Amino acid sequence: MTQYQRIALASRPKGAPTPENFRYETADLPAPGAGEVLIRTIWMSLDPYMRGRMDDAKSYAEPVPIGGTMEGGGVGEVIASNVDSIAVGDIVVGRTGWASHAVMKGSEVMKVDPTIAPISTALGVLGMPGHTAFVGLNDILQGKAGEVIVVSAATGAVGSLVGQLAKRKGMRVIGVAGGAEKCAYAVDHLGYDICLDHRDPDLADALKAATPDGVDCYYENVGGKTLEAVLTRMNTHGRIAVCGMIAWYSGKGVEDAMRLPAAWRAILTRRLRVQGFIIFDHYDRLPAFLAEVAPLVNAGDIHYRESIAEGLENAPAAFLELLSGGNFGKQLVRVGDDP
Amino acid sequence: MTQYQRIALASRPKGAPTPENFRYETADLPAPGAGEVLIRTIWMSLDPYMRGRMDDAKSYAEPVPIGGTMEGGGVGEVIASNVDSIAVGDIVVGRTGWASHAVMKGSEVMKVDPTIAPISTALGVLGMPGHTAFVGLNDILQGKAGEVIVVSAATGAVGSLVGQLAKRKGMRVIGVAGGAEKCAYAVDHLGYDICLDHRDPDLADALKAATPDGVDCYYENVGGKTLEAVLTRMNTHGRIAVCGMIAWYSGKGVEDAMRLPAAWRAILTRRLRVQGFIIFDHYDRLPAFLAEVAPLVNAGDIHYRESIAEGLENAPAAFLELLSGGNFGKQLVRVGDDP
Repeated sequence: MTQYQRIALASRPKGAPTPENFRYETADLPAPGAGEVLIRTIWMSLDPYMRGRMDDAKSYAEPVPIGGTMEGGGVGEVIASNVDSIAVGDIVVGRTGWASHAVMKGSEVMKVDPTIAPISTALGVLGMPGHTAFVGLNDILQGKAGEVIVVSAATGAVGSLVGQLAKRKGMRVIGVAGGAEKCAYAVDHLGYDICLDHRDPDLADALKAATPDGVDCYYENVGGKTLEAVLTRMNTHGRIAVCGMIAWYSGKGVEDAMRLPAAWRAILTRRLRVQGFIIFDHYDRLPAFLAEVAPLVNAGDIHYRESIAEGLENAPAAFLELLSGGNFGKQLVRVGDDP
Repeated sequence: MTQYQRIALASRPKGAPTPENFRYETADLPAPGAGEVLIRTIWMSLDPYMRGRMDDAKSYAEPVPIGGTMEGGGVGEVIASNVDSIAVGDIVVGRTGWASHAVMKGSEVMKVDPTIAPISTALGVLGMPGHTAFVGLNDILQGKAGEVIVVSAATGAVGSLVGQLAKRKGMRVIGVAGGAEKCAYAVDHLGYDICLDHRDPDLADALKAATPDGVDCYYENVGGKTLEAVLTRMNTHGRIAVCGMIAWYSGKGVEDAMRLPAAWRAILTRRLRVQGFIIFDHYDRLPAFLAEVAPLVNAGDIHYRESIAEGLENAPAAFLELLSGGNFGKQLVRVGDDP
């Protein structure tokens, strides 16, 4: 038995989550059994998809039960191991949850090579968000040189890599982000050709001006007014990769959203392909992703930005800020000291 | 010069078209020039897509101009030819318009072999509707044996072939059609496992009961309440081929339609692929379609039904009935006598 700290789901949110939906507590963790390891969490990831797990609704994954540990990925140090291929002191990444420690099967974690990049990148540019960006751009959108791509949440953990990889492919890359600071960062550091502020009441006009030749690919992270504006700009045979819809996760804006027929007409008359995807279906592409992107990160050719909350107890507040667009870059929580 | 009869677009409809939007008139047709043929129309096709051409709106094709001949496909006899490969007396199919005669380039028509099936089938089961059914089922939906498919407008020119080809593939085939007579026909003659009436106020519940294992493929011809019901039944990795949206063509029901976020959530969480398509993009698949379906039609293994209006002057009324779902089977107009 180990005493550990965790964040439990105290109650299900009605609309936007509040701090009262979470509970920070100390609990007992069983010792690792055969084939298991005990991990001391160092970094924990916060991601928009976690909002969905808080609801008791049909989705691609089971909801977190009331009283259960909030789910999520983490990077940590192995401090006890009953797995031959994993040694004490190894750094691993896995779905450790919002917790200071985790017991996991050896098959549920992956070793992290700390010589390639800081280990926190296993949760960001070299982890699930990066892998998501790679699959969405290459496999779902099938973006090609010379095409125009729009990326929403352009400076987020996923979008910032989509933009950079699209630019490296020779695409024209239009970002949409929240506020002047993020937009300037997108152009100055991530290589976007243009970045538009989704808070601009004239977003649709600004997008039209920015895309005189229309839009071939839309990497969709947000839904909301950004989606509505992009739909009017899609070219014949355009593709939309539906990766997220953060603007609608807590039900806000849903009543003001456009009705289905307008979107359906665009899909029909412009022969669009609209495809939802979840990275869990695409683990077969992890080696290809790492083979392409890890050397770029190691060489400093890919820019990434982290937003760090200190201490597990501050995870809920950081998560609420993430949902409201208040963070900037990949949101992490520092749960434990470096090894 | 030849005097001929035609139906012109007199005015653009506001909402549902009315007889006043059309004008039956006699006009002069120039003699065929070099590389052209003169065709005497025998059969003319009426199809839902023609509604879109009446509007002055951006779509996949140019609108019919006010005063212009309504567009559409026809089958006729060549009565004068300046094309080496086409003889007087040949039967050809092409976009002859709503007219008793047409002058067309040799490259704009295709010869019809009257020994395979009645020549009217070149506008239906062996023409554009059949080709559309084939491409939608095989290339867009990629339907497989053992999967569940829903086909809306199940007894229409397109849907009736989708259902039969899907059944031949070993799929479970659920139709949606308007009224008990069409539903009975779908099951008794077209081989649908079940056919639901879209006028049933409990359509969503009926669909749920009919699809205990969910829906893998949806061949979408209508939009409206049928689409909304099917969206809730789509399985993970389901596909939707958007071929038409007749329920929304004249703007009716648009204000009552569901909002985009609910559909978007289904696309994301169930990783759906929603793809619009237009047959004009898929002419490369015409040989494969004819190779598979023409022998089946010739052998009597494919059931098709025609609804025939007599005389060009009655085309507008038949078209309005088609839009309201009043016809039954492929809608044709007999414009001239058999050769």
